[in-house]
Amino acid sequence: MLSYDNIRSDDLRNWIFSEVEFHPLALGKAEAVMSLGNGYMGLRSASEEPYIGEKRNLLVNGTFNKFDEFEVSELPNAADLTRLDIVIDGTRLSLERGTVTDYERSLNLRDAELVRSFVWEYGGKKIRFRFRRFVSLDRLHQIGLLAEITPLEGGDVSLVVRSGIDGQATNSGSQHFHEGEKRIYDKTYLELIQTTTESKVDFVLGAAHHVKINGEKTDLAPKMDIDRRRVAVSYSVKLEEGSTLAFEKLATVFTSRDREFDGDSSLDRVRQTALEELRSMHSAGYDALFEKHCAAWAKVWQQYDISLKSAHSFDVLAIRFAIYHLVIMTPAHDHRMGIGAKGLSGEGYKGHSFWDTEIFILPFYIYSNPVVARALLEYRYLGLEGARAKAKENGYSGAMYPWEAGWPSDGEVTPVWGQVDIVTGEQTKIWSGFIEQHITSDITYAVWHYYKATGDQDFMNRFGYEIIFDTARFWASRLEWNEAKGRYEINEVVGPDEYKEHVDNNAFTNYMAHFNIQLAMEYYETLREREPRLFEELNRKLSLEQAMAEWIAKAKLIYLPEPNESGIIPQDDTYLQKKVIDLSPYKAQSKVGSIFDDYNLDQVGAMQVSKQADIMMLFFLLEDRFAPEIKRANYDYYEDKTLHDSSLSMSTHSILANDFGDGELAYKLFRRATEIDLGPYMHSSDAGIHSASLGGIWECVVLGFAGVRMLGGELHLNPSLPDAWEELSFPLYWQGQRLKVELERHLLRIEADGEAEVSLTVHGREMKFTKQLQISY
Amino acid sequence: MLSYDNIRSDDLRNWIFSEVEFHPLALGKAEAVMSLGNGYMGLRSASEEPYIGEKRNLLVNGTFNKFDEFEVSELPNAADLTRLDIVIDGTRLSLERGTVTDYERSLNLRDAELVRSFVWEYGGKKIRFRFRRFVSLDRLHQIGLLAEITPLEGGDVSLVVRSGIDGQATNSGSQHFHEGEKRIYDKTYLELIQTTTESKVDFVLGAAHHVKINGEKTDLAPKMDIDRRRVAVSYSVKLEEGSTLAFEKLATVFTSRDREFDGDSSLDRVRQTALEELRSMHSAGYDALFEKHCAAWAKVWQQYDISLKSAHSFDVLAIRFAIYHLVIMTPAHDHRMGIGAKGLSGEGYKGHSFWDTEIFILPFYIYSNPVVARALLEYRYLGLEGARAKAKENGYSGAMYPWEAGWPSDGEVTPVWGQVDIVTGEQTKIWSGFIEQHITSDITYAVWHYYKATGDQDFMNRFGYEIIFDTARFWASRLEWNEAKGRYEINEVVGPDEYKEHVDNNAFTNYMAHFNIQLAMEYYETLREREPRLFEELNRKLSLEQAMAEWIAKAKLIYLPEPNESGIIPQDDTYLQKKVIDLSPYKAQSKVGSIFDDYNLDQVGAMQVSKQADIMMLFFLLEDRFAPEIKRANYDYYEDKTLHDSSLSMSTHSILANDFGDGELAYKLFRRATEIDLGPYMHSSDAGIHSASLGGIWECVVLGFAGVRMLGGELHLNPSLPDAWEELSFPLYWQGQRLKVELERHLLRIEADGEAEVSLTVHGREMKFTKQLQISY
Repeated sequence: MLSYDNIRSDDLRNWIFSEVEFHPLALGKAEAVMSLGNGYMGLRSASEEPYIGEKRNLLVNGTFNKFDEFEVSELPNAADLTRLDIVIDGTRLSLERGTVTDYERSLNLRDAELVRSFVWEYGGKKIRFRFRRFVSLDRLHQIGLLAEITPLEGGDVSLVVRSGIDGQATNSGSQHFHEGEKRIYDKTYLELIQTTTESKVDFVLGAAHHVKINGEKTDLAPKMDIDRRRVAVSYSVKLEEGSTLAFEKLATVFTSRDREFDGDSSLDRVRQTALEELRSMHSAGYDALFEKHCAAWAKVWQQYDISLKSAHSFDVLAIRFAIYHLVIMTPAHDHRMGIGAKGLSGEGYKGHSFWDTEIFILPFYIYSNPVVARALLEYRYLGLEGARAKAKENGYSGAMYPWEAGWPSDGEVTPVWGQVDIVTGEQTKIWSGFIEQHITSDITYAVWHYYKATGDQDFMNRFGYEIIFDTARFWASRLEWNEAKGRYEINEVVGPDEYKEHVDNNAFTNYMAHFNIQLAMEYYETLREREPRLFEELNRKLSLEQAMAEWIAKAKLIYLPEPNESGIIPQDDTYLQKKVIDLSPYKAQSKVGSIFDDYNLDQVGAMQVSKQADIMMLFFLLEDRFAPEIKRANYDYYEDKTLHDSSLSMSTHSILANDFGDGELAYKLFRRATEIDLGPYMHSSDAGIHSASLGGIWECVVLGFAGVRMLGGELHLNPSLPDAWEELSFPLYWQGQRLKVELERHLLRIEADGEAEVSLTVHGREMKFTKQLQISY
Repeated sequence: MLSYDNIRSDDLRNWIFSEVEFHPLALGKAEAVMSLGNGYMGLRSASEEPYIGEKRNLLVNGTFNKFDEFEVSELPNAADLTRLDIVIDGTRLSLERGTVTDYERSLNLRDAELVRSFVWEYGGKKIRFRFRRFVSLDRLHQIGLLAEITPLEGGDVSLVVRSGIDGQATNSGSQHFHEGEKRIYDKTYLELIQTTTESKVDFVLGAAHHVKINGEKTDLAPKMDIDRRRVAVSYSVKLEEGSTLAFEKLATVFTSRDREFDGDSSLDRVRQTALEELRSMHSAGYDALFEKHCAAWAKVWQQYDISLKSAHSFDVLAIRFAIYHLVIMTPAHDHRMGIGAKGLSGEGYKGHSFWDTEIFILPFYIYSNPVVARALLEYRYLGLEGARAKAKENGYSGAMYPWEAGWPSDGEVTPVWGQVDIVTGEQTKIWSGFIEQHITSDITYAVWHYYKATGDQDFMNRFGYEIIFDTARFWASRLEWNEAKGRYEINEVVGPDEYKEHVDNNAFTNYMAHFNIQLAMEYYETLREREPRLFEELNRKLSLEQAMAEWIAKAKLIYLPEPNESGIIPQDDTYLQKKVIDLSPYKAQSKVGSIFDDYNLDQVGAMQVSKQADIMMLFFLLEDRFAPEIKRANYDYYEDKTLHDSSLSMSTHSILANDFGDGELAYKLFRRATEIDLGPYMHSSDAGIHSASLGGIWECVVLGFAGVRMLGGELHLNPSLPDAWEELSFPLYWQGQRLKVELERHLLRIEADGEAEVSLTVHGREMKFTKQLQISY
């Protein structure tokens, strides 16, 4: 269990959470939820001394590599920089041995600092350890680590600290790097250069150390050691009782794919840059580097300045936790990269981007930092290359986005085989990469959402229109004519609910495809009228006129499932005919997916059981297309059958519950969403945090409780704070202005940082203001 | 420290050695020295529950794979079959936690069984564990593992045992396998199929379990789990105090390179065979399989029936230890494979074969089991392919054997880069693969040795002559004419003493090259006379007539360094001019190679410091070419400068000390040789046992103290037992008969199993006998 009330000082209240007991069977929890990063790289918070069951991950965004022809590209696990082997009087430090007191491992979200401290008693000695660590947000290539060791009782100790760069790391067994070059300059600067085996990205990793005793630098000569894929130094010292040894490790991470090497990413240049950075870090020292890092984070918290007064202070922490992770996982520095479904906090989902980004995370950036939202959509623009290839391979036109995306030109990278089928004993085939196709309209939706909220016409001209048109071209080619019914269908798909494979006319998929084509038709006209030159350019590239003819002919004949006599929209052609079983044991589950202990996917596919929101997602995205009573009826019908086995599910249901005016339920679901990573289940985050769920937490707050929505290009606010909340304020970017929205129970204040008039609708009341608005609601 | 006097019963005296304390910082020692195997595969004895710092190795002989173009072929570390994750009342079993009593891990050499037992106290419970394990010698594909768990005090326990096949293993980071297929048949038979990435060898691994409580089989349903590269099952059970749970794991290892699949090594066939074997193992159970394994080992000990009465009973254990390891490392089943320098007990030297086999191990087989000796030489015959390729690449004729050999057709596989140079901070270049060339004549020497001792003419006709001729062709092309001195030289080599690189006219190399050519010349005549058809065949293949002309012209002009005025043969052209330093700190070293903590290889190269026997090796191999006083003078001169940093060094020096009549020194050196693996230094065997040193232990006994030698085709015995030894007897194959040699202090008895007359020379007295000989000496 994590602890959330470790308040050191008032100004750190709700900025810190801790692990106050060492959990050897649940190491993954703290490793993932306390992971560090800066968007460039993510560092899982495995402890310095190693343990069985740990996952030491250092992932650099965008450096995808494919182990072999049978695997898909993934973010390679770079050489480890954080392990320290500490031997005291001939015994290796391990918390599994001896007596441990005052244990605490904390993540300080404000300063993005990991601190771990404890007192270790062993062999009659009592020694205090304190470890600090940061991944610099000031300079993206820097990692700082500080270990302080103080013998408290039992006399002097003989201490050996071994530290280095360890390239024996793999991605659960798959090795993505050549052995590489190893070198130690001036007995001080350790260097490991490794190149990925297929994508040929050079990684240049460096490390250097200071050893201080009672604050004084020593000039201990290290023992040097070069091994397979490893370079290390060992320092041996006799440490007196009461003295403190401070061991600073300053490390650098560079790759030939880094944007600053555009134009010349030769190994020589990367190496030179890396070595200079390392020397400069070494000369600056931990404290000075950490100070700059903190200053960079102070700016982050100004940018995402959300504040909340809640009777449950955990809510405040949970929101900060979500924003912290969104920041460290997002490659704001480089539009060639996406956000992984586990961020950069673990090997889960291989660093791939899903619709999680566009539907669950992008709104956060659209409304809090649109520059980053644009970069993320540019990543999808670059991804048109892979999307067009995928369409072609599948016999379609236009752009068919990959269900899982890595490097933009890669196309589809969803792996094919999953967990064991309990019936056949074979691995289950993962169909998403083949037939979970709604991702393509989800991206178009996000482009539209961004554009409507920001008014960024430059983005549309350069990227947005092309995405919208080419995805519409895909859908037009994807539609299947049902002669008997005289309609276009989309058959043999997986919808958002992944427990139903090979279904026909998944409502979400059909409606969103229809939306996509409609949008293209609308912008076809707009563009031809307003930007004839750009229109012509795109027309040449995408045969727009021909496409438009096809859209016109087909759009109105797309089958859009309507509510049945009970008001229920069938999730697909067969869902409502499937058998209903008692789901209560699985609804009460402590971990997701427990139904697979009893059934295989084929069996689950034959029941009215959903993994996650499906129709609900449709209501959320196209909310003005459905009447409230229809939404409510479907919510009641489907929620009952939904196991929320996807982390994407809870926040959507919370937002919809708010829409129905069921604030209590909305808050309950919000709390459950916050517990996906921060809650008591100790294995939920083993493969990494849930990036969509973290975006979902922000969505619950801003789109849910504050009720912010973009509807048909207009800003809507339907605030409805939970009973526990007194005040909520957050920044909201709208059409180029930064608004500061402040909510009390029945009071709404908005301040704009610009002079432009803002139109919005609050609980149905249209209004306009400049600079400032204050109303009761 | 290992313990050697763990006598359970009189008949197991000196058959068992133990570790009686758990050493978390020196796991490698017991893992390697207690490793199991059967020549087909080697299984390092990492404990069932995992520890930081362990090396879990399962190596199958001959399955070499190359990770990438920058690495050399090595034996891939196959998926782990031995790890068990045992969780008791929610806490993972670990000897680093709680209180451990009655700890003992033993290797029973007689039965080739590993047994580990202890009582673990934790959380108020006291539980006894006992683990047993064997790698079957009866059926080479079988591994059996048995864990017995008994709660002794503190009440019932809740127990989870997780077991499976874990293919996340690497060779220190290099992954040699594709992910592969994973499957569980009938919820019982686990299967992992993985193929090596470059050599495309299919590995089919299987595992199945029985869970018994108090001897009764249970039908617990396991939880199944398939992960990346892993397949596993977990059994959960409530175990009552006083009850014993027996967990049997029966595992199979097959590869498409196995000899039984010659002709049809299709994956289907291998898989089918493996599954049948697994089912049959599962139905037989641990006890029945283990019994057959013991019976197979009983035959081994009949074959290598060495017996010794020594005041130091450790000597007896050491010899058995040597033979045990020689047996488990030797691929007696398949002549396409060699013996690794670390056997199959670790990743060290990558499973490659060196001259260690021919010079240090082959004599054991020549004299104790010539069938195996022949198979090992046939491996070198197959290796002509790679040797010819290497000669060609280097611009030479004939066969230039690789310094390190893997699969016969691979040619040279010595890696190029080694440990850090403490001066430059860069990796040291390993020159052996390029210029340590004496291996070629060492192999020829071994062919001759085998032939002379066995009289195996069939071998010579089919393989031996061709090796001898083609290696001689290499040497003739390798010689360099020194016009000034009017002689042929061999320059720019590394001799046996690897601390001297790029030397000219290394005495050992020159003499052995000369020997090689001389031998070819001799057999040229013999063959032409006695087997004209074979002669013609080889003549056509190797242009023998032309080669002979070259040999005749060159042999007599090869420079063979002579003793100087002090009787010292210069090791090479410059050794005797190098500076002499005080080596006493390094001579007293507790681990090898300590000189590199102070100097780099260039600096060591400039001193009169030797890694290992060099001239001494020459005296040992060509003993009748040098006068005793020359040998003694050189011994005194060079031993002083030799650090014995190679495990090949001590036994050679021991044997020579015997030759000089210095029995006390010989025994001291023998004891030091036995301590290379079994001694107190806890890290000497981390990368695996020292196969040459183990052969050397046998050599010390039989070639040293019993003084067995083949000189010019004649059998010599110069017995001289150490003071501590009362009786020694051993089998000795000679010219097709098995002799049983029995020695007391001054009595020699020999019994032959055949009727042929045996000629031999004992301490210079020539004699002949049939059936039986008894003399005083």
